[in-house]
Amino acid sequence: MDELRVNPSRLQENFDELSKIGTTSDGGVHRPALSQAHLEARGWFQQKIREAGLDFYMDGCGNHFAKLNCGGADAASLLLGSHLDSVVHGGQFDGALGVVAALEVLQVIKESNLSLPVNLEAVDFTDEEGTLVGLLGSSSVAGKLAPDALQNPRGGRGNLIEGLKRAGLNEADLLNNQRDPSTLAGYLELHIEQGPNLFKQKIDIGVVSGIVGIYSYLLEFTGRPNHAGTTPIRDRLDAAQGACAFTLAARKIILEDFPDCVANVGRIEFSPGAFNVVPGKATVWLEFRSPDPVELTQLEAAMLNAAEAEANRFGLMLNTTSLDKHIPAPMSETAQEAIHRASEQLGLTHLYLPSGAGHDAQMMAGLCPAGMIFIPSAEGISHSPDEFSTWQDCVNGANVLLQAALHFIRLAD
Amino acid sequence: MDELRVNPSRLQENFDELSKIGTTSDGGVHRPALSQAHLEARGWFQQKIREAGLDFYMDGCGNHFAKLNCGGADAASLLLGSHLDSVVHGGQFDGALGVVAALEVLQVIKESNLSLPVNLEAVDFTDEEGTLVGLLGSSSVAGKLAPDALQNPRGGRGNLIEGLKRAGLNEADLLNNQRDPSTLAGYLELHIEQGPNLFKQKIDIGVVSGIVGIYSYLLEFTGRPNHAGTTPIRDRLDAAQGACAFTLAARKIILEDFPDCVANVGRIEFSPGAFNVVPGKATVWLEFRSPDPVELTQLEAAMLNAAEAEANRFGLMLNTTSLDKHIPAPMSETAQEAIHRASEQLGLTHLYLPSGAGHDAQMMAGLCPAGMIFIPSAEGISHSPDEFSTWQDCVNGANVLLQAALHFIRLAD
Repeated sequence: MDELRVNPSRLQENFDELSKIGTTSDGGVHRPALSQAHLEARGWFQQKIREAGLDFYMDGCGNHFAKLNCGGADAASLLLGSHLDSVVHGGQFDGALGVVAALEVLQVIKESNLSLPVNLEAVDFTDEEGTLVGLLGSSSVAGKLAPDALQNPRGGRGNLIEGLKRAGLNEADLLNNQRDPSTLAGYLELHIEQGPNLFKQKIDIGVVSGIVGIYSYLLEFTGRPNHAGTTPIRDRLDAAQGACAFTLAARKIILEDFPDCVANVGRIEFSPGAFNVVPGKATVWLEFRSPDPVELTQLEAAMLNAAEAEANRFGLMLNTTSLDKHIPAPMSETAQEAIHRASEQLGLTHLYLPSGAGHDAQMMAGLCPAGMIFIPSAEGISHSPDEFSTWQDCVNGANVLLQAALHFIRLAD
Repeated sequence: MDELRVNPSRLQENFDELSKIGTTSDGGVHRPALSQAHLEARGWFQQKIREAGLDFYMDGCGNHFAKLNCGGADAASLLLGSHLDSVVHGGQFDGALGVVAALEVLQVIKESNLSLPVNLEAVDFTDEEGTLVGLLGSSSVAGKLAPDALQNPRGGRGNLIEGLKRAGLNEADLLNNQRDPSTLAGYLELHIEQGPNLFKQKIDIGVVSGIVGIYSYLLEFTGRPNHAGTTPIRDRLDAAQGACAFTLAARKIILEDFPDCVANVGRIEFSPGAFNVVPGKATVWLEFRSPDPVELTQLEAAMLNAAEAEANRFGLMLNTTSLDKHIPAPMSETAQEAIHRASEQLGLTHLYLPSGAGHDAQMMAGLCPAGMIFIPSAEGISHSPDEFSTWQDCVNGANVLLQAALHFIRLAD
């Protein structure tokens, strides 16, 4: 078992084929959840599963599974995987690597005819990136999908309905999709770090200790639309001013008071949105993160207070809508130990670190022991066409996933 | 002639019919240029012209004309009019009142069987509001429409092409539509003030002395898109920060250094525009106005310098695109005198004032003597569903338009 390795040329062939789906001219991929390109990538995954002689099934949330029955009909499954959706105009590696590597691990174990105390499954989770609903697929599996998240989704209700229709999914099934925990032995996910730590310190493997919590909000500043030529500046109730002042304040709050946290205003929309009309409404898409639950609550208060203060400063009304609240999630000690042992065994340097990005593993952690393996991201860049990891790092990560799975099975047995 | 008055009930009936086209639930109208609602309003206007026994014609830019041949085949025309398009979710009065009143004046003169040294025309100009191209119809008539304005329009090239197609217009015809100045005796336009001066001072009529110049720009701040969870704030090149800091700076520049001017950021767009991606690009829709040509140039420099400074402050690149440049336009002395005399004759108080809003009259001023009549706007509000003028003020304005036309004809004869 210790000698088993992934087949690097098959891994690369699969990765390259997948990267062509939804490819953009700048070398990235554009596969927002349930878009045509994303559904095409899922079709490709399903075909690969069948070609590999593995069982395919899909659950009520559209999550795609490959299953290798190496443990017998009644055995629980160790789940390996990630996601095939990307952010809008994202990169090739985020999510895709973890799914391709999980499939590769199942193929290697199948070819070795190993008999294990568990079955193995590879999964592609729906909408990890939250184009529609953050961590949709894994929260559905974990039984953590709130009906309200579907009524008031990050990506807009209309887009969600269209996406589900395109994918042939039924909204009621999403809410009735929790997996029986007794069928799961654990969950392991290989992913790019998306931050600069491993790259800057030239370390091969990250053993993820825990995943940050993420809160997202819509902040709506309301003033009064008016003619932009005839209304003196002092007489205006300009919603743009409140939204922009808040966007600057959010950055300042992090720099001055929450240096271990991050915040982002990823989008702003002014209404009515014309050159010659003072914006009567401005909507701000806000997200902030902390690895610590208490700090996350303090940061939330600081953000909402700043929004209120800027609204008051410009005579505006403020309406806040809390969308997603993902609390910080620690990773399983057993999984961390398994990843540590696999790295040692393969002669790879490794580092324990938290994840600043959200991942499906944080949802799975509520259901079974969960762990994550990171490989370096060049310059720490991700969610961008410039996202890059060396192929050697990708192969290293896939081998750690393979060996960590075997260590995990032995440790948990 | 001095006894002629408009028919207030016919005027109101027409105004109310028109207000129903593109009506919104909040009492406003939504008739962006060349939208279905706008084309429906133009169809209504054409029908009214025919029902009144006036001649109808349309020019190469889609401008709709009614003609009363009261001056003979070779006589020049005194043109009266305004526009039927509205801003996105605008009000009932802006533009519409001027067109309905112009039609009413032609009907009254027709019914009186007056013989005049000029013919009379009523016009509805295309896209005064600049949903697609600012002052499209009047600049086309004035021969001031630059080919570049069609290639790079405020409203986006795709929307312009779609709109022209919907209206059955040909792009080449727009650029070949200049009116022979010898066919025009002058241009008079009745409009709501859209500012607070007449309303606050309780004055019936505004005699417009001149129209502000308006420059509009697209400012594009470019940074680096990146993962919003894993990229420390200090390592970001966040385009949102530059765009928002500029939006605040634009307001400060006006308040501190250009108190007689205005500026507006009516829209901002972040790219890629997701919760969890640091914006790599931010586009700002900017417009600013001054009644003085020298001051307008100074204001332009101040705005572009501020954009450059904010880009530098956040490590961003700046790309600026100048869209429209309308220089300030003084109104004809003869037209102002005619409006003054009409107001006196009708016992209406009046005030000479500049227009902070752009109007078709500023384009027509390059082609013939042009004048504008303002009536009060409640609270100075316009470009909003809350835009309102009393019906008495509307009737007063229409009567001043009628009598000013007759005074203008006598003064110019």
